Formats: sequence, structure tokens, C-alpha cells
Amino acid sequence: MADPTKSPPLTRDSVIAAHALIKQYIHYTPVLTNATLTELASTPQSASALANTQWAGQEPAKPKIRLWFKCENLQKVGAFKVRGAFHALTRLVAEEGWEAGGGRGRGVVTHSSGNHAQALALAARTMGVPAHIVMPKISTPSKIAATKGYGAKIIFSGSTSTEREAVVEEVIKETGARLVPPYDHPDIMLGQGTLGIELQEQVARMIAEGGEGQPKCSFALKGHRGKRKGLDAIIAPCGGGGMLSGTAISCEGTGISVFGAEPSFEGADDCKRGVEQGKRIETVKTLTIADGLRTPVGAYPWSVIYERKLVRQMFSVTEDQIKKALRLVLERMKVVVEPSAVVGLATALFNEDFRQLIEQESGEEGWDLGIAFSGGNVSVEALGKMFEPPVAKAERQEGLVGVSGEKIAENVAGKKHQEKS
Amino acid sequence: MADPTKSPPLTRDSVIAAHALIKQYIHYTPVLTNATLTELASTPQSASALANTQWAGQEPAKPKIRLWFKCENLQKVGAFKVRGAFHALTRLVAEEGWEAGGGRGRGVVTHSSGNHAQALALAARTMGVPAHIVMPKISTPSKIAATKGYGAKIIFSGSTSTEREAVVEEVIKETGARLVPPYDHPDIMLGQGTLGIELQEQVARMIAEGGEGQPKCSFALKGHRGKRKGLDAIIAPCGGGGMLSGTAISCEGTGISVFGAEPSFEGADDCKRGVEQGKRIETVKTLTIADGLRTPVGAYPWSVIYERKLVRQMFSVTEDQIKKALRLVLERMKVVVEPSAVVGLATALFNEDFRQLIEQESGEEGWDLGIAFSGGNVSVEALGKMFEPPVAKAERQEGLVGVSGEKIAENVAGKKHQEKS
Repeated sequence: MADPTKSPPLTRDSVIAAHALIKQYIHYTPVLTNATLTELASTPQSASALANTQWAGQEPAKPKIRLWFKCENLQKVGAFKVRGAFHALTRLVAEEGWEAGGGRGRGVVTHSSGNHAQALALAARTMGVPAHIVMPKISTPSKIAATKGYGAKIIFSGSTSTEREAVVEEVIKETGARLVPPYDHPDIMLGQGTLGIELQEQVARMIAEGGEGQPKCSFALKGHRGKRKGLDAIIAPCGGGGMLSGTAISCEGTGISVFGAEPSFEGADDCKRGVEQGKRIETVKTLTIADGLRTPVGAYPWSVIYERKLVRQMFSVTEDQIKKALRLVLERMKVVVEPSAVVGLATALFNEDFRQLIEQESGEEGWDLGIAFSGGNVSVEALGKMFEPPVAKAERQEGLVGVSGEKIAENVAGKKHQEKS
Repeated sequence: MADPTKSPPLTRDSVIAAHALIKQYIHYTPVLTNATLTELASTPQSASALANTQWAGQEPAKPKIRLWFKCENLQKVGAFKVRGAFHALTRLVAEEGWEAGGGRGRGVVTHSSGNHAQALALAARTMGVPAHIVMPKISTPSKIAATKGYGAKIIFSGSTSTEREAVVEEVIKETGARLVPPYDHPDIMLGQGTLGIELQEQVARMIAEGGEGQPKCSFALKGHRGKRKGLDAIIAPCGGGGMLSGTAISCEGTGISVFGAEPSFEGADDCKRGVEQGKRIETVKTLTIADGLRTPVGAYPWSVIYERKLVRQMFSVTEDQIKKALRLVLERMKVVVEPSAVVGLATALFNEDFRQLIEQESGEEGWDLGIAFSGGNVSVEALGKMFEPPVAKAERQEGLVGVSGEKIAENVAGKKHQEKS
């Protein structure tokens, strides 16, 4: 990949330029609205909902929020990651001396078991460049198959980042392939930021046109419609920070506030904690269900989020809040998203700090809030496991029933037998 | 509800008139396409996929099919049922003498634990008419709550149709409410048929416009695009037959073929079997996962489907094929549909009789096939149960783990212990 210092500057104009480069390759994904979710976001939480939280006993916030969902779950490969991958690849193939120096034959390499693997494989195939993808041996067969399906060469590694990076180094030594990292590079961030440009355009147009596409809601709009020109804010998930930082850059100078959301589980809110202590946290070990957000924020994204203060504030939500938001999207909105995609929505629905901020800044007029639905790659089995009935789950966690198939009925009987005797 | 003999004639013009009456109340739902599913439908099944079917050993069909999905899962209350309910209600309130005779005060009544209950409740509330909904005591709390949420009065009954109908009779005696049946009435059929009118309009427009909305596929379109004017056929699920018959009426005289799809499980394919034996089957007892299709086809729908031959042919699919289609829609298309919604897609993907028919009639040019996604009301728990890992399922079916929570670990140990001793 191109030397980061030769990347375009991290400005809104560079994001617009990135969009011009990649728009022929990606879907211009729809922005959806949903009356039930907008109404719910604009209804104060009950005292009982707040009872076991840090906001127990407080007066619930009364924000007015009109929600606009940017559906990157309907993007190619099912996630926003193609934006960054296509931007990195278009820039790479246009790099001076790359073609003449045999760069095309050497190809590109990355390590990922998730959406970036498929995104890079698709972008590389589209550009006629070989892709080497390092995946942990334990990756799910469907993800390996999907990545292979895009024509990439899969190289297996161990699961730790040290093991994975060692294999990447070997591949680079053997093939001369160029590394395309998943988030920590300006070209990737500028590519991901293109979703922010589209979301701004789409909401402004939908508000101007009025009618069907509007979030239907029982408040506010009448007196204020004339004033509304577009989004007031965007909230985006933060894992490595590529999308959040790119989106923030895409909003610079527009007056649109950008917020980041993370899971709080097992310290997955590294960026929020980093901002609070004024120093980037470089390692995280979490098994949050929002599996796209288990990585620590990268150095380049951090420079935008924290040092340039382009992200106003970071928020975090619990696993339970993520699941509640996920259920609402599946059951009410009828679209499939992965858990990582709903941390922004969960923040808007359940985080009183964020809700108070909106109430205080916007009053009766309310905010038009863009939610970045980052991706939709989740298997029906994974959903089933997330929402399995409590009894079945308790059994499984006790080792009574092995979802993976390794623990079977005999173990059950054996264990219980032992306990009883 | 109005005397059926006073309903408009069952013609395409009557469906268009119904659409004019209800379109202000319903969503003009989107038509989506999906490259993966269109490609899959246009790829011959493997010999191994056919090995354990009635087509074992046959040469797999090679149809070319471009799929267009009418997304009634995104309709109000999450299902097409609002179309019929709004049509019945608008006609009722306009009925001569109804208002003057105090009809509004007496309201409407139906029995349903599913989508029709919510649809009628919403239509009645919108029209300012009280609704009495008879629901089995064992209905899921979320469905009861949703129906109440639309302002309906819930009256509980036993679960058999005899018990439910007896309670309906009582309600009518007490209140004078008018019965609005879920499917077996011309007003309902004409209302449901409006989805066919929209689907025809939308596909014709999308083909004329070209570009993004088209199903992307690697075949055929080049040479033939000029000739394509719209749909060649529509396939719709058949439970009571309201939607299938309404859609068939909406296509009469257009040259668009209409097909029906049913689950084969435990005789749920009553309409198909009825057509084969030339006589409507009036009772069915099935627990197919396509729970919206457990009812036998009604007399009025039957007259359109069979006697007027407006439906060309009925097909059936297995539970496994329904699940496969459901998984593809959830995981690849990223939209949430209920199992009943995908029997048409399952037929297009897996039923060799239907696929051979398409190949023979359309050759290299292929068909533009409309798929009616009837609804999206399914809980995440129900999805989880449908796709639970085989081991967990086996355990549960043996009574080792009770999903409902009634059977617990002690039973497990007890049972296994007994077996070993």
C-alpha cells in the first residue's frame, strides 16, 4: 500500500475525491427511516429501565430524535469495508512506478477473518490484482469460502495478532505483495468516509423532497420543517476507527456533529477510555458480541478522533443494550444487521448521557440523527445463539448442551450423575 | 362485512379500484432485487442436491430467472394483510345505511392470532371503528400486545376453530359487530390483489429505466432487453388463498402467468392436492414452519384459483427447502421475512417441475419472475429455534432441554440416569 505520508490530506475534499474514484465500484446504499424506532428514540426511558444503570433515580431525558439509517449492510460484501478497500486499490494501481515495477504481479496482502478480508478480495479481483489473505485456521468455513469465492488466495495462521502478522511478513517476503491494513491508513479512512458524504446528500435531499421517505413522527416537524436542511449529527461505531474517523472528516466544516459508539464489555470501549485519559489505548482483549469492534482504535484514526477533535464525544453501551437494539432492527425494521452495526442506535435509545445532550442542544425542535449501519454479516446460527431462550442458554453455559457439538448428552448425564452421587 | 354478493366483480379493474381506495393508508412497498439470488436461481441444481428427491437421476433444469421481490415484509403491520383489511373497512363505512343504522358503534370482529388481527385492528382504528379480535388464550404475548397496541379489544377463546368461531358468534350477538374474515371474501381478495398491481407497475418501470434497480446477472439480458416490458410471471404463497387469488385477478388479461406455492409438510399443500383431484380440500392439520399457510384455501379464492383457472399451476416445497430459502434471504439479501414469505422463492430455487417449465417456455431469454414476500413477522427466538445447531435441537427434541423453560436440568439427569441404570 502507498506510503501513508503520500496519501491525500485528511480533509472533506479528499473524501469527496475518494468518492469520485470508487463510486463506480460500490453500491450507493439506501437510507431508510422507521416510524417505530424514531418514536421510541423520542420517548423518555422508563424509571425502571434506568433502575440498574448509572442513571438510576435521575429524571429521564426527553430528546426528540428523527433517525436516518445508512444501510451499509446492503453494501457489496455486506459491509462498508469495500469503500476503503476500493479506495486503497484504486490509489495503489495509479501509483507512479507501481505498474512498471511489476507491482501488479506481486499483489496485495492483509490479515482478517472478517469483512475486510472479503472487501479486499473483491476490490483486488475487480482491479485484476492477486490478493493474499491471512486468516486464522479457526475461521468459520463460510467466511473462508466467501473470501475464496472472490478469488483470493487464503493463507492460514494462528489466532493471535503476533502469529497473524508473522505470516503476513512471510507472504510479503515471498511475494513482494503490498500490505493493505484494515483501518490504520489514510487511504482506508478516506474511503470509509465516503459513506458520510452519501448520508449527508441523501438526508438533505429527502428532507427537501418531503413525503414518504421522512421519518414519521408525532412531534416537532410542523413548525420546524422549513429550517431543517439536513443532518444535525451522525453516530458511528468505533472498532479500529476507520469508519468513525472517515465520517468525522467527511463532516468537517458542515456543522454536523459526529459521535462514536463502542461496546463497554470487557474494555471494548478503548477509544472512549483513551479520550478520557488523553492517551490512546493500544491493546484490548474483549469478546463483545459486537465482533467487528473488538480491535483497539488505530493511530491514524486516533489522530482525527482525538487530536483533531473531529469526534465530539465517545459513548459506550452494554451487551444487553446492543441485543435490545439488534432485536428492534430485526423485528421492527425487518433488516438484517450484525451486532456491531447497532451500537450507535443503542446509544441513541439507551444512553442517557447522549440523550440529555440532544435534549439540551435541540429542545423541542429535535435532531435529525444519522446512524451508520456498518454491516449485515451475521449467520442465522449466530443470531439464534444470541437470542436463545434463557433456559437453553443456562444449560449450554453449564456445559450441559454443547452448541458446537463437542459436548453431548453423555457428558450431561455423567456430570449430573456425579453431582448427585 | 358487506354481503359478498354485493362486492365488486372479481376483475382486474376492481383491483385497480380497490388500490385507489386504499393507497392513502398503506405503504407502496419497495421491489428489491438481489444479484446472488438471481444468479443462484439461474444456476442448475447439482445432481447431489436432487439425489433424495423425486427428480433423482434427472438432468437438472437450466432456467434463466431474474427475480423481483415485492417486499410486503416492509408493509404496515409487517404484512400484506393490511391491504385486504383497509379495503374491507373502506367499503364497509361507505355501505349504504351502515352509518345511519349505527354500524359504526357496533364495530367489526374477527378471529386471528396472526397478521390479520393486527391488520384489522389498524384499519379499524384508522377508520374510527371499534374492533373486537378473538385470539386463542395461548397466543404469544407479543402478538396480543401488538394487537392491543392498535386499540383493538381482545377477547380470548380456545384454540380450535370451533371454539374460536363460537366466541366470534357470541361477540356478534352481544355487540352487533360485523365479521371481517381473513381471506374468504371478495373484498379481502381484491384488497390483497393490489400488491399485484403495484408489482407489475414497479417492474415495468424499473426495466424501462434500466440501471441500478435491475437484477444483476451474467446472462441473457443483452440481446433481449429491448423486448422485455415487465414481468413474465408471479409466484405467491397460498394459505387461505386471499393473496394468491387477488394477485391472479390483478394479472388477468396482462399475459403474466400466476403460480401458487405451498409447503408440502403434513398436507399443507391442500390447494395443490385439491387442484389435482378437482375438488377443494376443506380441512388441514399441519404444523409447517410456514405458519401463515396452515389454513385450507377458502371457497372464494378457490373459485378464482381453480374454477376460473387464473392460477396456472400449484407447487409445493419441503420444510428443508423453506429453511434454505429463508437462510438465503436473511444472510444474503439482509432482509427479515417470515417463513411463509419464502415458499415462492423456495419453489423457484428448488422445485425442478417449476424450473423445467420456465426453461421450456423461456429458453435463453429467461423470465422476469415476481416473488411476493408476504410478511416479516417473526421473532428472533423463532428464527433461533429454526436454525439451532443440530445437537442442541436433538437434545431439545428428546426433552433434554426445554425451550419453553418447563423441562429443566433435573429432568435431563433423571432421564439419562434411568437409561444407564
